[in-house]
Amino acid sequence: MTPPNPLSTESPHLDRVPASEIQDRITRFQQWLGDKLLDGAFLLQNVDCYYFSATLQRGVLFIPAQGVPLFMVGKSVDRARQESPLNQILPLPRHDDMVAYLTDYGHRTRLRRIGLELDVLPAARYIWFREKFPDAEFVDVSPGIRKLRMVKSDYEVRQLRRSAAVMDKGYAEIRSLLREGMTELAVDAILAGIARQEGHMGLVRMRGWNQEMPTTHVLVGPDSAVISCCETPVCGPGPSPAMPQGAGFSRIVKNQPIYIDFGVAVNGYHGDQTRVLVMGKLDPVLERAHDCALSILQHLEAVMRPGMACSEIFHAAQTISAKHGLADHFMGHGEGQMHFLGHGIGLEIDELPVMAPRFTAPIQEGMVFALEPKFTFPGLGTVGIEDDYRVTATGVERLTLTEQNVLEIWPISKNC
Amino acid sequence: MTPPNPLSTESPHLDRVPASEIQDRITRFQQWLGDKLLDGAFLLQNVDCYYFSATLQRGVLFIPAQGVPLFMVGKSVDRARQESPLNQILPLPRHDDMVAYLTDYGHRTRLRRIGLELDVLPAARYIWFREKFPDAEFVDVSPGIRKLRMVKSDYEVRQLRRSAAVMDKGYAEIRSLLREGMTELAVDAILAGIARQEGHMGLVRMRGWNQEMPTTHVLVGPDSAVISCCETPVCGPGPSPAMPQGAGFSRIVKNQPIYIDFGVAVNGYHGDQTRVLVMGKLDPVLERAHDCALSILQHLEAVMRPGMACSEIFHAAQTISAKHGLADHFMGHGEGQMHFLGHGIGLEIDELPVMAPRFTAPIQEGMVFALEPKFTFPGLGTVGIEDDYRVTATGVERLTLTEQNVLEIWPISKNC
Repeated sequence: MTPPNPLSTESPHLDRVPASEIQDRITRFQQWLGDKLLDGAFLLQNVDCYYFSATLQRGVLFIPAQGVPLFMVGKSVDRARQESPLNQILPLPRHDDMVAYLTDYGHRTRLRRIGLELDVLPAARYIWFREKFPDAEFVDVSPGIRKLRMVKSDYEVRQLRRSAAVMDKGYAEIRSLLREGMTELAVDAILAGIARQEGHMGLVRMRGWNQEMPTTHVLVGPDSAVISCCETPVCGPGPSPAMPQGAGFSRIVKNQPIYIDFGVAVNGYHGDQTRVLVMGKLDPVLERAHDCALSILQHLEAVMRPGMACSEIFHAAQTISAKHGLADHFMGHGEGQMHFLGHGIGLEIDELPVMAPRFTAPIQEGMVFALEPKFTFPGLGTVGIEDDYRVTATGVERLTLTEQNVLEIWPISKNC
Repeated sequence: MTPPNPLSTESPHLDRVPASEIQDRITRFQQWLGDKLLDGAFLLQNVDCYYFSATLQRGVLFIPAQGVPLFMVGKSVDRARQESPLNQILPLPRHDDMVAYLTDYGHRTRLRRIGLELDVLPAARYIWFREKFPDAEFVDVSPGIRKLRMVKSDYEVRQLRRSAAVMDKGYAEIRSLLREGMTELAVDAILAGIARQEGHMGLVRMRGWNQEMPTTHVLVGPDSAVISCCETPVCGPGPSPAMPQGAGFSRIVKNQPIYIDFGVAVNGYHGDQTRVLVMGKLDPVLERAHDCALSILQHLEAVMRPGMACSEIFHAAQTISAKHGLADHFMGHGEGQMHFLGHGIGLEIDELPVMAPRFTAPIQEGMVFALEPKFTFPGLGTVGIEDDYRVTATGVERLTLTEQNVLEIWPISKNC
């Protein structure tokens, strides 16, 4: 008896990467390899492999500058073959078997300049490649991959919209569930749970080494001004020094900002959104700062268009902040002040482009990024907003669905 | 006005690493460096840095073979100084500033044989070190660190007990909350939420590159026999090919196994536990296999003691499986069959030792590991059990608190 295969049941939630899109991505990457005079690239990172194969099974994807890619899969070969439109999917029980395949398929002797993902590939694997190809030169292909992944297809935008819808549902539901005295961790649990039920992956993927993030950052009052390890303006104390970010055991208090940064990935694509909620009324200092954040976002929504430099977007926000006398609070304070306003989102939550002074490249149609003007006040907390945008032919489109003001909590009741 | 510092409020949930223990870890690592004729090691991985510094702030920890460590911190220096008992904590705004510090503190010219974490350090950073120290030889120190981390102190065991208590609470609560027709994702959301409220980090840390895991694997019936990318016997289809593991949209059905693998980390230390639940009655084939898993665990509980080889523990389990005619189902089936029975747990969920044929080293007092005899039947699902053990002077102690049989769900009601 052949057992029923749970994978063959096409769930209505599935939306697989079209085969034509995989082919298109490979073709464009091969052009980039050709431009850089590379003979081919070995991709090992799970997300990069997924981008070019439509499967996240564990393996090594060899993409020659010309010709057909070889996907050598450790586990599961069967599943990779079922999910991926690639034609050459081969079992790779041991890493060393790779060399025989390359010889068999005629690639071995042609490889003089080889691409590797040097930003993420562990040193031990890099050393393995150097030993196997002692005469070859190794070049970092991550910039090429990240550049390609920066511009999203219609398929990808559809996935990002799904995540945006889940985030909106989360903020809508949490507003009626919050009570005075609830811990940040309890609020986090509810929001992460809403997202997970809707298909969120249950984790957030980051490319940056050592970077990690839970699904939400829920921080009440002064907690949202606590500086810590994250490469973001807001981090928080977390439950302990071993997890020095995000929700901890602090409790919801009236008239204090409840800062919620929500990262949701449905079918692999991350949305990233921040709202500040309040039970009662915000301190006037925070209220004015939040208005400034909102005006930054609304100004940028009106002026952003293809060709505008990422650095220009950052500087526009910085200038508005300074005009409001908020320069010292813009994107964190003191040691925690960051010099960026936004970042690309997609299969990872820390994609290109980055809206920062040293990113002078222009935004282009199809890019999707989060913009997050925020203001931090030690002892009071952080206010601001984060929304996701897609660059269109003539401007930008907001993917985030939630209203942009500070969200008031209804009903205000006690210790439920 | 100095703002209140949320970090200074000592939460009852906090249990910081004692300063004496940090000193002891460093001393033992320095002995290991000396034995390997290394002049010092640069640690960059966040978890390794935490192990030797008691803070998870982002930085580079230089531990000389002799003398005082230098912790050069990118962000946050203030928080690192507040949390860590180390004396030399220096700001590191740019990676290149490291070289000046090494010169100032007299280390630069002494470094001939340098330790790096080659299994996790990205290639680009390895290349940076090679350029800065062109005459030095680089040696992988991860085996030394992993060996040190393998044996847990009383402090560490206390943290592992906290995670065990949270897992037990999760299984106890979920038994009264499960209903027919609930999705795997909904069950996952509840369990992860219970854990998070109790202080779980909201993510699971794995050392293995490209390895990732949500807090739980909730899999109903045949889903728990689906082979996928994880280096575990059970993986599941997941919600989509972009997240090919763990809970998906399948629903709880009567008389089918509900497989729940739960990984909880309170204050950084991971517990790892599996139970099978059932609403109604299991298929007799699965029931017999579960009894076999239980008998394996009970046999091992009786015979394990310091000095027994890890490989021997694996083989004992394999032998019992074969006697029951279950060799083809032991630790997965077909392409998904794994050759290990258990693994160390601690700051990462994939620590040493590994109970596998090639690990011939003996278990020692203080080691903590999860043992997970499981049997997989395509089309039916997986049964088995996973518990955490500490090696004592004369045997083993079970850290897991939950009863070991198949958990029956009460009350059995419909579509709530």
